[in-house]
Amino acid sequence: MKITMAHGSGGRTSAELMESVFGKHFKNPILDKMEDAAVLELHGKAAFSTDSFVVTPLVFKGGDIGKLCVCGTVNDLLMMGAEPKYLTCGFIMEEGLDIDLLDQIVRSMAAQAREAGVLIAAGDTKVVEGSGGLYINTTGIGLIPEGRDVSAANCRAGDKILLSGNLGDHHACILSARMEIDNEIHSDCGCLKDITEALFGAGIEVRTMRDVTRGGLGTILNEIADTSRCRIELSEESIPVSDEVRGFADILGLDPLYMGNEGKMVAVVPAAQAEKALELMRGTEHGKDAAIIGEIKEGNGTFLTTRLGASRVLDVLYGEGLPRIC
Amino acid sequence: MKITMAHGSGGRTSAELMESVFGKHFKNPILDKMEDAAVLELHGKAAFSTDSFVVTPLVFKGGDIGKLCVCGTVNDLLMMGAEPKYLTCGFIMEEGLDIDLLDQIVRSMAAQAREAGVLIAAGDTKVVEGSGGLYINTTGIGLIPEGRDVSAANCRAGDKILLSGNLGDHHACILSARMEIDNEIHSDCGCLKDITEALFGAGIEVRTMRDVTRGGLGTILNEIADTSRCRIELSEESIPVSDEVRGFADILGLDPLYMGNEGKMVAVVPAAQAEKALELMRGTEHGKDAAIIGEIKEGNGTFLTTRLGASRVLDVLYGEGLPRIC
Repeated sequence: MKITMAHGSGGRTSAELMESVFGKHFKNPILDKMEDAAVLELHGKAAFSTDSFVVTPLVFKGGDIGKLCVCGTVNDLLMMGAEPKYLTCGFIMEEGLDIDLLDQIVRSMAAQAREAGVLIAAGDTKVVEGSGGLYINTTGIGLIPEGRDVSAANCRAGDKILLSGNLGDHHACILSARMEIDNEIHSDCGCLKDITEALFGAGIEVRTMRDVTRGGLGTILNEIADTSRCRIELSEESIPVSDEVRGFADILGLDPLYMGNEGKMVAVVPAAQAEKALELMRGTEHGKDAAIIGEIKEGNGTFLTTRLGASRVLDVLYGEGLPRIC
Repeated sequence: MKITMAHGSGGRTSAELMESVFGKHFKNPILDKMEDAAVLELHGKAAFSTDSFVVTPLVFKGGDIGKLCVCGTVNDLLMMGAEPKYLTCGFIMEEGLDIDLLDQIVRSMAAQAREAGVLIAAGDTKVVEGSGGLYINTTGIGLIPEGRDVSAANCRAGDKILLSGNLGDHHACILSARMEIDNEIHSDCGCLKDITEALFGAGIEVRTMRDVTRGGLGTILNEIADTSRCRIELSEESIPVSDEVRGFADILGLDPLYMGNEGKMVAVVPAAQAEKALELMRGTEHGKDAAIIGEIKEGNGTFLTTRLGASRVLDVLYGEGLPRIC
């Protein structure tokens, strides 16, 4: 069975798809009301974030667009110090999309949402012409517990920068799939909640967190340096990259510092808490390869001390990057 | 200038587009922080709704996808009795999209958001292969003032059903554009806030509201009858349709009861307040052609009394409807 334009009519065929695929996996008391909007009780400081996902292929080693779209938005909320609560999802399906594949992706979303502790509160589906593709938007709300103040603007000279693990896995995985290169590189697609819970649970005064996605570490650190009006200094040899991804990147002339990730984050913490934060990260599933990769200085710009001891400017990503990586 | 895959990289080219188009029109203190998520203060009962827009053509008589995507999500929030507060927007741009056209659409969104009193709190952009198309997801949060309880489940026998104006304008407008038929039919694309404010402001005890979009009045009323477990009886001669749209629909064999709208709503109110509610609606810009079109009875199903006095079942829309109408 394939998606047809009739599934986008808003009439009976839409309703049948809603029930047989989306309703089946997402079933919950809020969504079951089938109103124009979900009604929630919210009190306090809330984080609100949106992301559209256009990754291709739809299914890859270590995940699929369904897992990715839940993790992506949940991670954005977590990076603000929030506890993710509710997600909406908007599906734009191309005619010809296999309904069994859609079912698999929706099931994957539902499983990841349960794991992350978020409720799918509202949704929407549209159908467009095409050849079986799928785009998903997820928008999320999380609540920020009192006392947390995490922002890209909060870094101070002396703070240390932690990276939660190896760079480039998602990028290398997606590119391998597209180039039909047979290797064992899996996407790092995952939810960073174990790490944020470990850090906040132990009282680490996290200044800044950001997930390292499209644009790579180089771009994200430049954004942080700009927003906090500080200088960032990194040590190249401290930045973790797996042997397999390093080999893959070397052959293709890619720089892991600009490769996309979907389950990695940086956290900036006060120097005195850096070793403890590292230990906490390493104690989690998603942070087991964490490392302290640099520190915050007075000034501006992002700089990398290479393995040979030279210092070079680390700029944001220029040009294309890998299209449709997330 | 056209959108290229580099605009989706997450690097410098993305950032430049962000500043020159989105930042320019959407500028506000929350968005300017450029964090992974917006931080909001929310207290109370909130409505949360999402919609993706895939309408083609992107610009049509009476609006464009930018106006449509703000009105669509704002209307969904209004229909729950909420006061719309914040929107996120996710843009999926096809390669080749004209940047001047994008600018025009983003400006239109910003203008409509200001008019509706909502803040664009967060956004995301992606680029995919294609031929200059554009999809936009908008997700909104509104706050529901205490004492309001609007739900598709609240209808009671005896209640009256009001329709805010003529059916079929948006559908006829989009179809005319695609068929290159030269006429003066304009989309009804609009924000229904003037109507909801008038009703609540005067203390009307609104049971149920729903905007009449994709699937048409027939489908929406069936959903209400199902959710409220009641029977709906409509009078065909009371349902407003403009002469021009009726003529257009007759020629093409379309039924205005299943044609899509983008600025129309039904409201179900207690019988004793129906005349007052009608007068209030007619006093607004978007409700000037409002009519009482039927009533709620015990039982189930949706029925139409035709001009000839016969009663027929009004079912939900079967089959395709008009693709990509919203």
